[in-house]
Amino acid sequence: MSNAPMPRHPAQAARRAIRAGDRPPHTAGLAQGFVQANVVILERAWADDFLRYCQRNPKPCPLLAMSEPGDPTLPTLGAELDIRTDVPRYRVWRHGELVDECNDITALWTDELVSFAIGCSFSFEQALIEHGIRLRHIEQGRNVAMFRTDIATVPAGPFAGPLVVSMRPLRAADAIRAVQITSRYPGVHGAPVHIGAPDLIGIADLAVPDEGDAVEVMPDELPVFWACGVTPQAAIRAARPPLCITHAPGAMLITDLPNHQLATL
Amino acid sequence: MSNAPMPRHPAQAARRAIRAGDRPPHTAGLAQGFVQANVVILERAWADDFLRYCQRNPKPCPLLAMSEPGDPTLPTLGAELDIRTDVPRYRVWRHGELVDECNDITALWTDELVSFAIGCSFSFEQALIEHGIRLRHIEQGRNVAMFRTDIATVPAGPFAGPLVVSMRPLRAADAIRAVQITSRYPGVHGAPVHIGAPDLIGIADLAVPDEGDAVEVMPDELPVFWACGVTPQAAIRAARPPLCITHAPGAMLITDLPNHQLATL
Repeated sequence: MSNAPMPRHPAQAARRAIRAGDRPPHTAGLAQGFVQANVVILERAWADDFLRYCQRNPKPCPLLAMSEPGDPTLPTLGAELDIRTDVPRYRVWRHGELVDECNDITALWTDELVSFAIGCSFSFEQALIEHGIRLRHIEQGRNVAMFRTDIATVPAGPFAGPLVVSMRPLRAADAIRAVQITSRYPGVHGAPVHIGAPDLIGIADLAVPDEGDAVEVMPDELPVFWACGVTPQAAIRAARPPLCITHAPGAMLITDLPNHQLATL
Repeated sequence: MSNAPMPRHPAQAARRAIRAGDRPPHTAGLAQGFVQANVVILERAWADDFLRYCQRNPKPCPLLAMSEPGDPTLPTLGAELDIRTDVPRYRVWRHGELVDECNDITALWTDELVSFAIGCSFSFEQALIEHGIRLRHIEQGRNVAMFRTDIATVPAGPFAGPLVVSMRPLRAADAIRAVQITSRYPGVHGAPVHIGAPDLIGIADLAVPDEGDAVEVMPDELPVFWACGVTPQAAIRAARPPLCITHAPGAMLITDLPNHQLATL
């Protein structure tokens, strides 16, 4: 533990605590009101294709920041942010296979590595809740339900694969309001990609999500589907790069950006 | 016919032609790009309650302008606009019953009359079409399908009744886009009020509209429902004022306001 005084900025304090060894199992609820990000770290040779993949698929891959090769900082996302130590739990992938989970990647860092921070739904969920829209998976303490669709993302080099979506059941009036609210946040997946019949986007059974937990859809509700940050993770696994480092599910990078700063309107 | 030169403003030219005796059966397609309005004319004793009804129900009754008693102009809506002569066809209602249809209400005009102009869906339909969203009822040359719902409007004095909605079938991605586009136009009904299952708002059968023409909903489409300007007309009929004058269906008041001027964003 360092003896430096704790920063007063909630996000900086949270990152400092994580760096000092306080590793929460997940970051939901930490530094509330600040943007949390999905993390992808790739070798330079793969980074340009991945950047093009993000550019071509902005709804599932809203890129918040990208580092210079070898630079562990992301200055637009946080003061003194160090991508090697500031994520509570990392996953290390080699040739598409999960080989390790760890709390610190300093030993793996090289001048070849490029880090990407991608927007996550926590930000728009906070905006929905602040507007009085109830989200069942949060009230029930579950993970959001995620599904592979039959919608193909636009490939870039080795990166390709289906669009993965998250589903939240909402009554029609709330679904309309949710379109309005999330449209303001293109940096964190933006407006829904589908509303209503799941089979139209290749989802056979809402009770059997591909990731996360099943959440019931009541008879007076519509399933509302948003593009999901699991999409690029699946594309990377399929591309099988020699090395890839990501955050572990739910253990996100906490940034200094207030959620409301992402609002375009 | 007057010998005055035709104004160059398309809306002013259209009103001038109507006033001079050129009475089109409907105004769809005339002075394209300019706001057209529903017209309601009531005696002063009824006008305040009707104003309160509009204020309490802005989605079905988006009030664009209201005149002073006895003043046949609406200067915020058009230069030299005369509500007594500039609507192609009027309907005259006494105690809630349709008693006459005519082309000019100069003979009926008194110092007691107050006119209201209420936004109509033509404006947002133009915005949807300009954004590449296809509207089946327009492509098929039909009137939009309208339905009484089981949603009550907020009463004001004698004015009360169910919310009436118009329905347009859209695929989910277009429905999401349509929420975004029409949210910008609160002055012409704004965002939809419902998407999906019609029975949730008291509509038994989409094939049997209460007004307008039935329009098919394809299996890959959602019915999308907007608040409709027929709502105040029904409330007025039910209130049975001694005298009410309205436009005839489809024969709207053409204003000088460009549609895009109604966009809030």
